Amino acid sequence: MSLLVVGTVAFDAIETPFGKTDKIVGGAATYIGLSASKFYDQINLISVVGDDFPKSAINMMQKHHMNTDGLQIKQGEKTFFWSGKYHTDMNTRDTLDTQLNVLENFDPRVPENYQDCDCLMLGNLMPSIQKKVLSQLKKRPKLIVLDTMNFWMDNCLEELIEALKEVDVLTINDEEARQLSGKNSLVKAARKILSFGPRHLIIKKGEHGALLFNEEEVFFAPALPLEDVFDPTGAGDTFAGGFVGHLCATKDYSFHNMKRAVIFGSVMASFCVEKFGTERLESLTDDVVEQRIQEFVKLVRFDVC
Amino acid sequence: MSLLVVGTVAFDAIETPFGKTDKIVGGAATYIGLSASKFYDQINLISVVGDDFPKSAINMMQKHHMNTDGLQIKQGEKTFFWSGKYHTDMNTRDTLDTQLNVLENFDPRVPENYQDCDCLMLGNLMPSIQKKVLSQLKKRPKLIVLDTMNFWMDNCLEELIEALKEVDVLTINDEEARQLSGKNSLVKAARKILSFGPRHLIIKKGEHGALLFNEEEVFFAPALPLEDVFDPTGAGDTFAGGFVGHLCATKDYSFHNMKRAVIFGSVMASFCVEKFGTERLESLTDDVVEQRIQEFVKLVRFDVC
Repeated sequence: MSLLVVGTVAFDAIETPFGKTDKIVGGAATYIGLSASKFYDQINLISVVGDDFPKSAINMMQKHHMNTDGLQIKQGEKTFFWSGKYHTDMNTRDTLDTQLNVLENFDPRVPENYQDCDCLMLGNLMPSIQKKVLSQLKKRPKLIVLDTMNFWMDNCLEELIEALKEVDVLTINDEEARQLSGKNSLVKAARKILSFGPRHLIIKKGEHGALLFNEEEVFFAPALPLEDVFDPTGAGDTFAGGFVGHLCATKDYSFHNMKRAVIFGSVMASFCVEKFGTERLESLTDDVVEQRIQEFVKLVRFDVC
Repeated sequence: MSLLVVGTVAFDAIETPFGKTDKIVGGAATYIGLSASKFYDQINLISVVGDDFPKSAINMMQKHHMNTDGLQIKQGEKTFFWSGKYHTDMNTRDTLDTQLNVLENFDPRVPENYQDCDCLMLGNLMPSIQKKVLSQLKKRPKLIVLDTMNFWMDNCLEELIEALKEVDVLTINDEEARQLSGKNSLVKAARKILSFGPRHLIIKKGEHGALLFNEEEVFFAPALPLEDVFDPTGAGDTFAGGFVGHLCATKDYSFHNMKRAVIFGSVMASFCVEKFGTERLESLTDDVVEQRIQEFVKLVRFDVC
């Protein structure tokens, strides 16, 4: 029984109003895995890097319960690189550079020892690659979560819509929900998107929290108001990791338990943005996570009588 | 014992993607009073209109528990008029026309029978007018809530800062909180603004909910995700009315009860935007309000163990 995580492992160079980094380790799968590892310890990673990727980073992943048998290391090739600069409000950013490198011909392979998989987290990647992983699984996982972005809606919408038919939970942000549905109201957008196939939809609104929809219900999880958002990179992936990590650990895929999972995802995302890159996630203790969960409880708890 | 509401009573002409209105009755005090009247029935109104203001609208206010002894009717003058057009996303709007008319020389007078006042709601108005009302009260109300806007920060910041020293709760939106504090982080903005005098701060974030701060605590109330936002005019005032109405009805000004009040304010605002102007607020029954309160409970309720 395991959580299978598919996504990028990358180098990022990030600039925010608080400072800038050289190449640091990033990528959707890295953030997802680190975040999920706070809740679950059987994480199988599928990704690709070049031979420039440091052994120490792979060791760090393994230390955080990630099996890297499915991490391809391409000799003579370079790791995917992204560079971006955040504006003062931290809600918008410019991409300064994208070098696909090993991602360009990424052909994901599911190792035999990954087959026994409860939950599948398809991190943001070309939809055809996401589908390729799915098609290699001999048994459908009990939960399939897919994350995507506007770039794939612009460039391979049909493949994305095809992939959506297979998934249990789709996670996108509010602008992407509006784009994918053609609806301005998020309630209408959710209804339209659920009609494409996913049984649940999570709309991530960054500092404004996240909404979880199924056909009958809606749940809202706030983001924790923070003193400083230091670096938003990876927050969405970290959210997804906490979400799927909790669900995989509990094997309870009810809406009731998904509400908790959304809170735990928000908790993890609130840590992610406090330092550059994966730094904060790597150093988290269980006590600190538990304490922050209680902050979320306090933040929204009220009684009406 | 009563709730004293000071603010504009106006004509609005509104255009949204859903349609447009001719002159309809609006104004901060109108929305505040209507909203508060769902929770409390001793509302004393201070405002000013011209002789063009319809008797039927005054009757409507009285029907909704508003005493209009303090509503000045200026013969031969015209009622304050505002006209605006909302953009497709409903979050931004252009002011098409503003005719101050009777507001230009508004000299608020507190009638003797208004003196016995538990709670004072100072709706958005020039800070000097807000202070003028306050100075006429022989006994400080137990709760003073002040609403304001960026226009007064731009044009009479000093007077506004003076007024803030007197109040218990300030309500502003997120952009205004950033402007007033010079801080981008809402947590830092809140700390700075609380240092100006108010013991509590409510930051309204429209469709993203509202935050309630005091020096030690923070509470988040979501906005209800709606199928359609028909007309956002008056939503902030309606929020304030529900907030102060509940507090005045319960005479409990603790943070614990203010959390409820913020939820009730959000509940009322969620109705306000469903139709043009005050239409939805005028027709609300207690059952419908109670049902929506339960929707808010469901929207954010989770347990973590």
